[in-house]
Amino acid sequence: MRVLGVDPGLTRCGIGVVEGSIGGPLSMVHVDVVRTHADQHVAHRLLAIERAIDQWIETYRPHAVAVERVFSQHNVKTVMGTAQASGIALMVAARRGLPVALHTPSEVKAAVTGSGRADKAQVTAMVTRLLRLAEAPKPADAADALALGICHIWRGQAANRLEAAIAQSTARQTAVQARRVASMRGQGH
Amino acid sequence: MRVLGVDPGLTRCGIGVVEGSIGGPLSMVHVDVVRTHADQHVAHRLLAIERAIDQWIETYRPHAVAVERVFSQHNVKTVMGTAQASGIALMVAARRGLPVALHTPSEVKAAVTGSGRADKAQVTAMVTRLLRLAEAPKPADAADALALGICHIWRGQAANRLEAAIAQSTARQTAVQARRVASMRGQGH
Repeated sequence: MRVLGVDPGLTRCGIGVVEGSIGGPLSMVHVDVVRTHADQHVAHRLLAIERAIDQWIETYRPHAVAVERVFSQHNVKTVMGTAQASGIALMVAARRGLPVALHTPSEVKAAVTGSGRADKAQVTAMVTRLLRLAEAPKPADAADALALGICHIWRGQAANRLEAAIAQSTARQTAVQARRVASMRGQGH
Repeated sequence: MRVLGVDPGLTRCGIGVVEGSIGGPLSMVHVDVVRTHADQHVAHRLLAIERAIDQWIETYRPHAVAVERVFSQHNVKTVMGTAQASGIALMVAARRGLPVALHTPSEVKAAVTGSGRADKAQVTAMVTRLLRLAEAPKPADAADALALGICHIWRGQAANRLEAAIAQSTARQTAVQARRVASMRGQGH
């Protein structure tokens, strides 16, 4: 499966696409960091992130999107922007009809290093090794986006199948509701 | 001028459209609350909010969008969802090319009641009076969205003109950059 991982942030938003399966080899499809400037209005920064993620989904056709879960205890100064960027990533994935999952930083660290308390250097080192990259992805946000993709693949087909089933069922329900509304309108109700 | 106010929230997102000018009468164009259920995936809840706000801009053609500024000190349990919903509102406004402003809860309260520490009942009472409504808008999120619109109109044409100028200048810069990139591509760079 192919997963698009997003490490949300306003100043630097890491995006990475990883392909692989449990027990099979992993490979990196692409990685980059969307940067927006603090002198832009936050609305325009969020719009740039929306466009980038949507373009990546269009270009790399992932089967699922994995976004880092943001906690309010984290760096208070930047947490609002991080939460807003994560909301954009989640919404874009839903709009594209893709299953989307949130993974906590500890889940991601534990998936790639074996320890939920690993530091950034350790995560970057393991991402570089697991994806057999010639050099470490930089900055840390890029490595984190790839780690999210790996985490999502390794957290299991079972959980991912459940996500996909829920996404499909929600899409079906929405379609049924839309048809019902259309038919009620047709009957003049 | 016509302003769309958004009181962001995942469970209840207040949206209201107010028309008026400084010194002139104010009127309510429309108000409602977008509700999404906690049993839906957050990605689908955010998508529902994106669609609703975009539809409102399409239908009511506001000149500006005013969104309540979210602070991380507030209710920790719901603050992440509130921040994400506010990010969606800001992004949709920017995508529509509308000037967008953030107002703090105290600025909104001070604008409609004269006190930055007014309670919800006082804000609702003043919104009802200022818009000459037959009954109070319910729930509080609906009244808050209208209060945001009033606050934006009253905070002055000068500030709003500045916002509009910045929005236009950013849009122009983006267009110039896009043309430059296109021309560089055309030259094979």
